Amino acid sequence: MKQGGSDAAKRAAGEAAAETAEDGMVIGLGTGSTAAHAIRAIGRQVDAGLDVVGVPTSFQSRELARTAGIPLADLDEVTVDLAIDGADEVAGGDLVKGGGAAHAREKIVDASADRFLVVADPTKMAETLSYPVPLEVLPAARTTVAESVRELGGDPDLRRAERKDGPVVTDNGNLVLDCAFGEIADPAALAADLATLPGVVEHGLFVDVADAVYVGSEDGVTVREL
Amino acid sequence: MKQGGSDAAKRAAGEAAAETAEDGMVIGLGTGSTAAHAIRAIGRQVDAGLDVVGVPTSFQSRELARTAGIPLADLDEVTVDLAIDGADEVAGGDLVKGGGAAHAREKIVDASADRFLVVADPTKMAETLSYPVPLEVLPAARTTVAESVRELGGDPDLRRAERKDGPVVTDNGNLVLDCAFGEIADPAALAADLATLPGVVEHGLFVDVADAVYVGSEDGVTVREL
Amino acid sequence: MKQGGSDAAKRAAGEAAAETAEDGMVIGLGTGSTAAHAIRAIGRQVDAGLDVVGVPTSFQSRELARTAGIPLADLDEVTVDLAIDGADEVAGGDLVKGGGAAHAREKIVDASADRFLVVADPTKMAETLSYPVPLEVLPAARTTVAESVRELGGDPDLRRAERKDGPVVTDNGNLVLDCAFGEIADPAALAADLATLPGVVEHGLFVDVADAVYVGSEDGVTVREL
Amino acid sequence: MKQGGSDAAKRAAGEAAAETAEDGMVIGLGTGSTAAHAIRAIGRQVDAGLDVVGVPTSFQSRELARTAGIPLADLDEVTVDLAIDGADEVAGGDLVKGGGAAHAREKIVDASADRFLVVADPTKMAETLSYPVPLEVLPAARTTVAESVRELGGDPDLRRAERKDGPVVTDNGNLVLDCAFGEIADPAALAADLATLPGVVEHGLFVDVADAVYVGSEDGVTVREL
Repeated sequence: MKQGGSDAAKRAAGEAAAETAEDGMVIGLGTGSTAAHAIRAIGRQVDAGLDVVGVPTSFQSRELARTAGIPLADLDEVTVDLAIDGADEVAGGDLVKGGGAAHAREKIVDASADRFLVVADPTKMAETLSYPVPLEVLPAARTTVAESVRELGGDPDLRRAERKDGPVVTDNGNLVLDCAFGEIADPAALAADLATLPGVVEHGLFVDVADAVYVGSEDGVTVREL
Repeated sequence: MKQGGSDAAKRAAGEAAAETAEDGMVIGLGTGSTAAHAIRAIGRQVDAGLDVVGVPTSFQSRELARTAGIPLADLDEVTVDLAIDGADEVAGGDLVKGGGAAHAREKIVDASADRFLVVADPTKMAETLSYPVPLEVLPAARTTVAESVRELGGDPDLRRAERKDGPVVTDNGNLVLDCAFGEIADPAALAADLATLPGVVEHGLFVDVADAVYVGSEDGVTVREL
Repeated sequence: MKQGGSDAAKRAAGEAAAETAEDGMVIGLGTGSTAAHAIRAIGRQVDAGLDVVGVPTSFQSRELARTAGIPLADLDEVTVDLAIDGADEVAGGDLVKGGGAAHAREKIVDASADRFLVVADPTKMAETLSYPVPLEVLPAARTTVAESVRELGGDPDLRRAERKDGPVVTDNGNLVLDCAFGEIADPAALAADLATLPGVVEHGLFVDVADAVYVGSEDGVTVREL
Repeated sequence: MKQGGSDAAKRAAGEAAAETAEDGMVIGLGTGSTAAHAIRAIGRQVDAGLDVVGVPTSFQSRELARTAGIPLADLDEVTVDLAIDGADEVAGGDLVKGGGAAHAREKIVDASADRFLVVADPTKMAETLSYPVPLEVLPAARTTVAESVRELGGDPDLRRAERKDGPVVTDNGNLVLDCAFGEIADPAALAADLATLPGVVEHGLFVDVADAVYVGSEDGVTVREL
């Protein structure tokens, strides 16, 4: 998880995206520090009378949403009108996500939304994606997937945990391979290749999923529609 | 799981494929009644001195292999030379698998093998695939995936369990949607579409994975190289 | 899952227990055919204006509650006032549960309730518990637990699935050992022994958890307070 | 995970315990930095001709054992003769384990061994256990278990992850509550209480499991038989 952006920039992006919430909406609630600003802002709107339901993308965003007082639903009860989520890197409309190992559920929620807003600070913006792509993999497949990643030109690295022995385990019980591909010239092609590898539960490339990017700064927000 | 084929036909296919095992090989051991004949045959060859190591594709095949006396390894310790596995339906070289809900690990093992032999009886052979395609899905994604399957022209059905309340849960802790698509004119295109749906852990289409199909009958075996 | 009781008896028990629901309550919703009658009855009361929130004990009861129109919450959002759940066998106030492999979450919910009502038909009632006790076990522990069960005088049997290859997998991703102990003279002692076996996630003995037993029949309901 | 001990002390303990390995043994291989010394020492003995099979207690110890060249088996294939494992705290013969979140599988293996040797450095030794006891809990039970822990006089703390968003997830897909009880006057009584809490998969108290404690120092090893 790149942590370089200023909190003010993250806040500007998150709060601007939260402003688009409207009465009656079901809102997908993203994971990470920028999305957290959006969740808290939506919570304040709910306190002020906004009538929305949130669908968390992770354990973390669910906790935050409950603290913020946002009524919650599960994804099988509703359809998502608006999703607001962060990214580890943004180039054009394509994203790398998964620094927080929550990208499988994030993609399920974000891709199902009628409209998906990415919130980011300037440190996340790039000309070309080059952030290592996290792959959530079934434990039994970590070596076969790693081999296939190498054949695709990538350098896979099993993500280790800090507060348990052994690897990071996702909320779904799987492992994470962080795969450095250098500059990713054709994200759509790489995404298609990664999706078909047996044992890959979800990769962190979000291609053609976002509808707009909100980039915050100390001075305000730039919105780019896609 | 289609159970229509005769045991003699299944045995003929499984045993013929097992004959291709050679000293020093690492062998992927498939799941289901036809692959079980191959496992038992390999076990008898091991008793007679064959030096191989097995990599099971499921809890079931692991148990059977241990009973048969085949030394076992995990997939992260070895690379697979030969895989022998059954199918629910075979058309040309394409398969539908997953009636036993083990298709994720089966695909991981079968696709990693240098050579993958499908073993089947004549009731599994079809001109065009039309068997419902099992999708292993993350529990949180079962309704969004079901909706996407409908948009792709399929009819998804959550697989219910018989010996527990609620749905079948896979060995990986996920759910199964059996998705009827009618006749599947372009399995490769459908496979690519299914692989990219967020929340799909693995689909049951095996396209361009098999190297040969062994079809048993009462009278013998027909081998088709692909 | 014993299925011997008449639907009328199950309905009588479930509906009588559902009558105790009051405005403002958080209600734990049990799993199985008798608890299903309670869920449907609560749903009708909700339609008629009852203001309650349900906490499902399983995938199955969650689905049923949604169909019945009961607002739902997760266990980390509320505390349970009343739980209504079935049993595979009842003797005195002690139960065997787990025929549906949902007993871990059932026990979490039922034991946390201020008041837990067991609903049953006469075929479930016994002088002494003798129904095989389901143990949910971590996959890695199934043989060591089986050995320990034998030392405790039990006969463990790994529950096989019907609609997947291999064993039944619980909603938590674990396995089930059905352990026949014959007549269980001292359920509290056996429960204490089973709870301490390494790898046992939850056993199906519910000792000193129930507050009342509702036994339905063709003619009505007998309520025994404990 | 207390990391205070010197590497020399850990090495002395681990290597002395490894010396007790004998031809033909099945050896449970513990998790953590002291057990790692034992694994490497056994690996060197295997290189020198020792004929043993290892049963890892975690992903980490399995990786280390493979690197060390120790042949491995799963727990359902063998029975364990000797287990060597570390601890976060040792008082008398009782232990707190689980700093690495691997205590469920560790307890399964260690408790099944004919003989279980604890390896520790002097910083782990205490008069009375007071290290926070890790509880592995089903995700659905984390709040009910936390409440029960408070009633038992403990202070539960959900363990947060560093390299993923949200909580640490164990290799079994569960969560960890670190529960501070102050000085634990009666570990056996607390262990019995914790074991019976619904939703507790495994607690980190190891009472009456160890057969000997090997305490290393810069000068050598003290062995205490229990």
